[in-house]
Amino acid sequence: MKQAVDGTDERQTYYVSETAKIGSNCDIRHGVIIEDDVVIGDNCFIGEYTFLRRGVHIGNNVDIRQFCYFAEEAKVGSYIKIFQYSNIAKWTVIEDFVYIGARVLMVNTRRIAFMREYKLDIKGPHIKRGARIASGAVILPAVTIGENALVGMAALITKDVPDRQIWFGVPAIKRGNVPEAECISENLAKSKNRK
Amino acid sequence: MKQAVDGTDERQTYYVSETAKIGSNCDIRHGVIIEDDVVIGDNCFIGEYTFLRRGVHIGNNVDIRQFCYFAEEAKVGSYIKIFQYSNIAKWTVIEDFVYIGARVLMVNTRRIAFMREYKLDIKGPHIKRGARIASGAVILPAVTIGENALVGMAALITKDVPDRQIWFGVPAIKRGNVPEAECISENLAKSKNRK
Amino acid sequence: MKQAVDGTDERQTYYVSETAKIGSNCDIRHGVIIEDDVVIGDNCFIGEYTFLRRGVHIGNNVDIRQFCYFAEEAKVGSYIKIFQYSNIAKWTVIEDFVYIGARVLMVNTRRIAFMREYKLDIKGPHIKRGARIASGAVILPAVTIGENALVGMAALITKDVPDRQIWFGVPAIKRGNVPEAECISENLAKSKNRK
Repeated sequence: MKQAVDGTDERQTYYVSETAKIGSNCDIRHGVIIEDDVVIGDNCFIGEYTFLRRGVHIGNNVDIRQFCYFAEEAKVGSYIKIFQYSNIAKWTVIEDFVYIGARVLMVNTRRIAFMREYKLDIKGPHIKRGARIASGAVILPAVTIGENALVGMAALITKDVPDRQIWFGVPAIKRGNVPEAECISENLAKSKNRK
Repeated sequence: MKQAVDGTDERQTYYVSETAKIGSNCDIRHGVIIEDDVVIGDNCFIGEYTFLRRGVHIGNNVDIRQFCYFAEEAKVGSYIKIFQYSNIAKWTVIEDFVYIGARVLMVNTRRIAFMREYKLDIKGPHIKRGARIASGAVILPAVTIGENALVGMAALITKDVPDRQIWFGVPAIKRGNVPEAECISENLAKSKNRK
Repeated sequence: MKQAVDGTDERQTYYVSETAKIGSNCDIRHGVIIEDDVVIGDNCFIGEYTFLRRGVHIGNNVDIRQFCYFAEEAKVGSYIKIFQYSNIAKWTVIEDFVYIGARVLMVNTRRIAFMREYKLDIKGPHIKRGARIASGAVILPAVTIGENALVGMAALITKDVPDRQIWFGVPAIKRGNVPEAECISENLAKSKNRK
């Protein structure tokens, strides 16, 4: 069922489903696992031991570091960086130009139905264009992080963060606004290369 | 001393000690490491890159996801789910029907004797039947989480949580009670399959 | 470019750059990745799946557990323990006799320049001799943790911790002083073996 694909040297041995589609000029590192129906665009880097579950979609110029976990059907745009150990929940939506630091934790349900009878409302977070999430943040399910919003280190985000606001703390509250000069400019973004 | 055991396809290459015992109908994924004297029951799933240290015991119908770390002699019951990146301390006891989310952190000593002369009181947490621990929680050593208790996301648990109570926050305090309808029923639990 | 080096049994297959230097009596475990120009001293243990980026320097008698990530050019002294999942930032300096628990998170910039024009001030934390950092702590960039200081579990360290002080909380504040008897003694330390 599965095929092993070997890269150009010993560090690049990874496992990719034969139903996955990987674009051109990608660098897939040692120990990466890519399940069925994953789609990866062009110019992407997938760091060592990162795991992409079934149906994950990733755009172009995306840089994902080591030990990350992407649950089923997470959708990731283009021009994005995601650092080591980050956990992206099922059905998360991440728009273009988003930055996600190390060890960011996202989940997809507020309730735990394990061995119980009730039905879950499962929904991942929605991270909008140009948002920046610092390392160690924890994002509850179904939360929207607004355009160009900034989430501080180790923040616990329990509700929606409006566009261009700065939130941190446990639980996080509004702490300020992102200055105009730090909002993503489409021209700037398009002119940049990923590395 | 150690033997390499290859699964049925390329994704299932893992390392298991020859003194480990693995039950029937288990699915052991790529990169898993199972040390000496580990015992795993029937119908278990061990996700990619998870590490079971010497003497870990796991019951039946246990679903452990990717990148978990079980320290020496942790004891895990049956009908349990443990999500990715969770760290189970040495001598932790986890009873039946427990749910542990992603990136839960448990430790086994409040003091750090490293390079110091004093003796440590080492003891893992004790998670009782039907308890649910949400993702990102941190559990101090020697703490008991009561039956059917519920620990919230990213909570820091520094003392015992009584049966059926809901605790969250940093540090966590009591926030409510688990409704009767969400307490585990033995009949319900036994009638369920793990998947 | 890279060479695969196989250990003495199946668990010890790791990848090491040919420009890395590894001392005598080291135990490098399965899945470890060691990049260019890494230097490791004598009597070191590198646990399964740990990743040492380019230019990391590690002294003697250092015990690093599983799933750790050391960013480029982190400098680590001698007689040190670092537990599983810890993330050591670029240019971090860790002096001798330091203890770092599990899942400690260090970063190297307070600002996120991703796709923005401004210049970053990049600097890792500096952890001084004999300091102890408990599991789950998050350390901001350019912070100094003083000699023999003690950082509590899951603390968020946003500013310098003076020598011999105890800090914890989110954000952490001073909570006490480390007793004289728990300060590292050079004679004691030198007389100890790593295991």
